[in-house]
Amino acid sequence: MKIGVLGTGIVGQTVAGALASKGHEVRMGAREAGNEKAAAWAKKAGGKASHGTFADAASFGEIVFNCTSGEASLKALAAAGAGNLAGKVLVDVANPLDFSKGMPPTLFTPQGDSLAEQIQKAFPKARVVKALNTINANVMFHPEKVPGESDLFVCGNDADARRSVTDLLQSFGWKSVIDLGDVTAARGLEAYLLLWLRLWGALGKPEFNVRVVR
Amino acid sequence: MKIGVLGTGIVGQTVAGALASKGHEVRMGAREAGNEKAAAWAKKAGGKASHGTFADAASFGEIVFNCTSGEASLKALAAAGAGNLAGKVLVDVANPLDFSKGMPPTLFTPQGDSLAEQIQKAFPKARVVKALNTINANVMFHPEKVPGESDLFVCGNDADARRSVTDLLQSFGWKSVIDLGDVTAARGLEAYLLLWLRLWGALGKPEFNVRVVR
Repeated sequence: MKIGVLGTGIVGQTVAGALASKGHEVRMGAREAGNEKAAAWAKKAGGKASHGTFADAASFGEIVFNCTSGEASLKALAAAGAGNLAGKVLVDVANPLDFSKGMPPTLFTPQGDSLAEQIQKAFPKARVVKALNTINANVMFHPEKVPGESDLFVCGNDADARRSVTDLLQSFGWKSVIDLGDVTAARGLEAYLLLWLRLWGALGKPEFNVRVVR
Repeated sequence: MKIGVLGTGIVGQTVAGALASKGHEVRMGAREAGNEKAAAWAKKAGGKASHGTFADAASFGEIVFNCTSGEASLKALAAAGAGNLAGKVLVDVANPLDFSKGMPPTLFTPQGDSLAEQIQKAFPKARVVKALNTINANVMFHPEKVPGESDLFVCGNDADARRSVTDLLQSFGWKSVIDLGDVTAARGLEAYLLLWLRLWGALGKPEFNVRVVR
């Protein structure tokens, strides 16, 4: 599958690398063409890996991953272009973390809102699916890094898009992906980060996840 | 142990009932003396169960549970009396849910704050411990109602108080209680409710909990 990955940071590199290693054609997008980190990634990934601007990556992908930082996401997606995102599954893995007041971060979204909803509102023709924001980047496509079965979550307004993302996650070994329904569930998935950050502190490592015992 | 339970609703009734069934002396507190629900509860619980005002329950308890609704908590605790809470472990199980804009509820606390912190600030001599707000009342003292091991969490500024609450929870069969540190972790525990509510919807039942797989 042709996949666009927006973002050249740790999350973007990790997501793009995992997808490419599974045989997908991945194009990493950056603010500007010729971004050093994107070029280095593409060179290292080899094969079908490529890089370009946000717009290049978005137009290339049949599915697009938003791996930019939460604060930069709306701007990055605007650069990617509404037309390049129209009709496509846009997987939003970002979290609306605000580090401006120091640690621990707060969420910059007000109560009753979420980054995924803001993205869906700004890009109404994109099929936004919130996913993977509840785990560390190293675990996203490596469920085996968490010792025991745990759960992922998807939400978004388009049921087929949620199903597509679930299928992709299952192809990486995630056995349980819980469908939380429409995009407003992202309020819960993003708010969970505040607990996740405290758990990280308490456990002393980011390679953990939750299992919903029911 | 002498325990004060503030609140006569489902959570108060369930918490008070579970504690009394384990042999604790429980006094249920209500806004006014002679509250019908509190009286009925005490009669049914029998033995060492009693009821009275919020102040009666708070002064009676060596440990006090805030089981009022989040919106009513600060007012109920004011009625209970700062003096009656001073030096005592105050277990805050409430959630700052705002149903005024319909379902799903939002949190009435702003980002970077929590109900537990507001309580600790208003009653600086109380030893506030946030606990049990992450599960349904029926599960709080019945870990066996969740089929499989799962985790509880405590946080608060007083390590001894967190330890006391952990001991109490363990006496009810909770094997794993994760200590998240100071009271600001309540931001995460309360924000998790937004995810909990969506999980409730997706699973169709409230008897579930999370296991932190690590």
